[in-house]
Amino acid sequence: MAKLRVLVWNEFRHEKKNPKVKKVYPKGMHDVIAKALNKDKGIKATLAALDDFEHGLTEEVLKNTDVLIWWAHGAHKEVKDEIVDRVQKYVLQGMGLIVLHSGHFSKIFRKMMGTSCILTWREAGEKERLWVTQPGHPIAEGLPEYFELKHEEMYGEFFDVPHPEALVFTSWFKGGEVFRSGLCYTRGKGKIFYFRPGHETHPTYYDKNIQQVLKNAVKWAAPVKNSAKIPEGVSVKPIEKI
Amino acid sequence: MAKLRVLVWNEFRHEKKNPKVKKVYPKGMHDVIAKALNKDKGIKATLAALDDFEHGLTEEVLKNTDVLIWWAHGAHKEVKDEIVDRVQKYVLQGMGLIVLHSGHFSKIFRKMMGTSCILTWREAGEKERLWVTQPGHPIAEGLPEYFELKHEEMYGEFFDVPHPEALVFTSWFKGGEVFRSGLCYTRGKGKIFYFRPGHETHPTYYDKNIQQVLKNAVKWAAPVKNSAKIPEGVSVKPIEKI
Amino acid sequence: MAKLRVLVWNEFRHEKKNPKVKKVYPKGMHDVIAKALNKDKGIKATLAALDDFEHGLTEEVLKNTDVLIWWAHGAHKEVKDEIVDRVQKYVLQGMGLIVLHSGHFSKIFRKMMGTSCILTWREAGEKERLWVTQPGHPIAEGLPEYFELKHEEMYGEFFDVPHPEALVFTSWFKGGEVFRSGLCYTRGKGKIFYFRPGHETHPTYYDKNIQQVLKNAVKWAAPVKNSAKIPEGVSVKPIEKI
Amino acid sequence: MAKLRVLVWNEFRHEKKNPKVKKVYPKGMHDVIAKALNKDKGIKATLAALDDFEHGLTEEVLKNTDVLIWWAHGAHKEVKDEIVDRVQKYVLQGMGLIVLHSGHFSKIFRKMMGTSCILTWREAGEKERLWVTQPGHPIAEGLPEYFELKHEEMYGEFFDVPHPEALVFTSWFKGGEVFRSGLCYTRGKGKIFYFRPGHETHPTYYDKNIQQVLKNAVKWAAPVKNSAKIPEGVSVKPIEKI
Repeated sequence: MAKLRVLVWNEFRHEKKNPKVKKVYPKGMHDVIAKALNKDKGIKATLAALDDFEHGLTEEVLKNTDVLIWWAHGAHKEVKDEIVDRVQKYVLQGMGLIVLHSGHFSKIFRKMMGTSCILTWREAGEKERLWVTQPGHPIAEGLPEYFELKHEEMYGEFFDVPHPEALVFTSWFKGGEVFRSGLCYTRGKGKIFYFRPGHETHPTYYDKNIQQVLKNAVKWAAPVKNSAKIPEGVSVKPIEKI
Repeated sequence: MAKLRVLVWNEFRHEKKNPKVKKVYPKGMHDVIAKALNKDKGIKATLAALDDFEHGLTEEVLKNTDVLIWWAHGAHKEVKDEIVDRVQKYVLQGMGLIVLHSGHFSKIFRKMMGTSCILTWREAGEKERLWVTQPGHPIAEGLPEYFELKHEEMYGEFFDVPHPEALVFTSWFKGGEVFRSGLCYTRGKGKIFYFRPGHETHPTYYDKNIQQVLKNAVKWAAPVKNSAKIPEGVSVKPIEKI
Repeated sequence: MAKLRVLVWNEFRHEKKNPKVKKVYPKGMHDVIAKALNKDKGIKATLAALDDFEHGLTEEVLKNTDVLIWWAHGAHKEVKDEIVDRVQKYVLQGMGLIVLHSGHFSKIFRKMMGTSCILTWREAGEKERLWVTQPGHPIAEGLPEYFELKHEEMYGEFFDVPHPEALVFTSWFKGGEVFRSGLCYTRGKGKIFYFRPGHETHPTYYDKNIQQVLKNAVKWAAPVKNSAKIPEGVSVKPIEKI
Repeated sequence: MAKLRVLVWNEFRHEKKNPKVKKVYPKGMHDVIAKALNKDKGIKATLAALDDFEHGLTEEVLKNTDVLIWWAHGAHKEVKDEIVDRVQKYVLQGMGLIVLHSGHFSKIFRKMMGTSCILTWREAGEKERLWVTQPGHPIAEGLPEYFELKHEEMYGEFFDVPHPEALVFTSWFKGGEVFRSGLCYTRGKGKIFYFRPGHETHPTYYDKNIQQVLKNAVKWAAPVKNSAKIPEGVSVKPIEKI
């Protein structure tokens, strides 16, 4: 069976500018994520970044991508609108999209959701506990009842996104908040998964449970083969006599 | 109790240019819809059109609107992007939005859905039969198991919109197609209802069942009072000790 | 407008046997709930209990009930199966059902959900904070971003119920758990709302936010008038020529 | 990789008593379905029937079943309640359940849905056209925009089931009805798919599109491995200090 082609996209600025982040992720968060995914024989993950040509998201690249993973934080505005439109086009045609952490406020996620995607937040490195709230979902494979991250940024409700088709994880924060942390959507023929954790100053993407979630999500978000096409908006003839 | 303030927005071009449409709707489709709604003591419906100042959708007007009804067809591109952004802002804050027929391809509906909103279609004036597929929904109040429109434009699947929170109507067309015709969504604090029928050359908005649906939809889409605000995207302090 | 007829059903055993509970609710929890609801001019709430004739749920009573509220805990098994079937019949025909706290394990709730409705729990009187996770929902009317109960029993995930049509509240517990606390479902023509708080030893039903939720839920769960009937399972003739 | 263990359960009475049915399915519908599934290298399908010992659904058999397919029609009442409870237990623990056609009125499907599962019907051998209404869903893999069955029993709305998590197919019938024909649910850790076609007097299960749907559904409904367990309903200790 052909491998799933995953593109791990990273803004890749914090790792260059902030020594604290560089220490945690010397080659970038995308590099750690891709290496973790590539341990799976069924996955081939490669890298792309904001400062690549066309953000590393050319037609050629997207045509050969099954699932796109998106991490971004400070430079959402620098992503060109025509590239965002292009990514949306591929998602609607079936490419999976996994949006991580601060990617909640990216142009592409807000475009796919139709909402503000605003939330409350706090950088205090407090404890986060993720509860599995849909254990029968493929993204929950191999995970215990809950798992913890010792230090994470807090994200709190209300999170302005549509009611999800599945709520795989719900987070508890020591400071008193809850958050819907693992959310599934279908848009066009594409599947979208939003996953909350992953602040740049914490070693979240080295965590084995987090890596398990990402691997599961990639497999879940893979495109369905040879299914009915999205209509092209042209007039059709009657099938039956009218 | 204060009346629900409904704004019926119409592109209002076909009625001026096409004699066939003018004959059916001499004062515009929005006028017929507003008159039908105004028979209800709890509703006060007014009119707005594309060619009004700021499309009739100024901050002042939207601030005083509970539910916005949207009919458009040929001039989607003429609606200014900043006005679309403004309407979205009010929907997310709680204003109801009812999108009619060819409004499926309006900028505002596509923005709120995050998908292409494409479908197949046929202008053949064939019979449409709308089946109630969620009789316990408030929008189905007072309606029989199914009702018919003798002559309508056909819309067929696949309709590229997200899976709805409720599927109130499903249409049967004589030519062989089906269509998800009455769809409910929540976006931010706003409720959105898409309702399929309403081609400009047919007297659809005079139909008593159609008018009943619109009246029900307005009441369902009314804003909820004094509820929790959408966060403003600022950092928050811990509630508990961390 | 006719008042909504609400029947507040209570097992009504703890209040008689446990002095601690009796002190908090001398006339029963149902009495406190009904009194709170009756402050609303649009509602007329009455009482029923397990030990009434036919559990106070005769055909005559249910025929005249718009919304049934259900609190139960220790005596689920004593509720007769034929009465449970009867309640289900009325819910499917449109009667609203609001299930409170330990009612999660009642025969009627498990029957309507199709799942085990199991959860984890802890009686430690810890702090519960309910976050509004769908502020645009009618059940969130008049409520702040979150509200607290100083002492409550803890319920934790995984809660074995179907993915809800709306998730109005999500709870944070001091001991480290989260819980989906306000859940909406449609079954047949009936609306069902599950609301978590309400342990018998705490004065939860005197809380003004809790009372606001119950009032909102009653209005949301009210039956839709004169809508399409549930089919009777008989063969039908073709509408069109076949 | 280990093969998916599928058990095709059939009432298996019509094929013995009705010569018309026997002619179409001499060894039973389950035999035709299992043979079609067994062409896939990843599936091992076996048979069970109502008249087998414990209906062929012993603890030993269910423990070794990944996905159960259920066809039944005239003898729903003969299925013992304790066996229905047993099947539910396995579904909640993760076993997939695919309910076919008249299985809509089986004890197990009604138990899992919580509704009457009633619909309207007509045995007239008319044309059915199934439209794909969620082309991005795994169950739509390899299927065209629509496909037809020349002769089928008609099922019409309102179909009294909960709003599905995904609506994969919607049927058009020549006689004028529509029907939600491919419905996905999660109950506990188990996935449930209801698929409409399959009247015993028509050769529906020989159809290559129908066989494709069943193969897709089996793969979609397969249990998720090693995920969080359903709680056992016992009290838990606090994770954090309270």
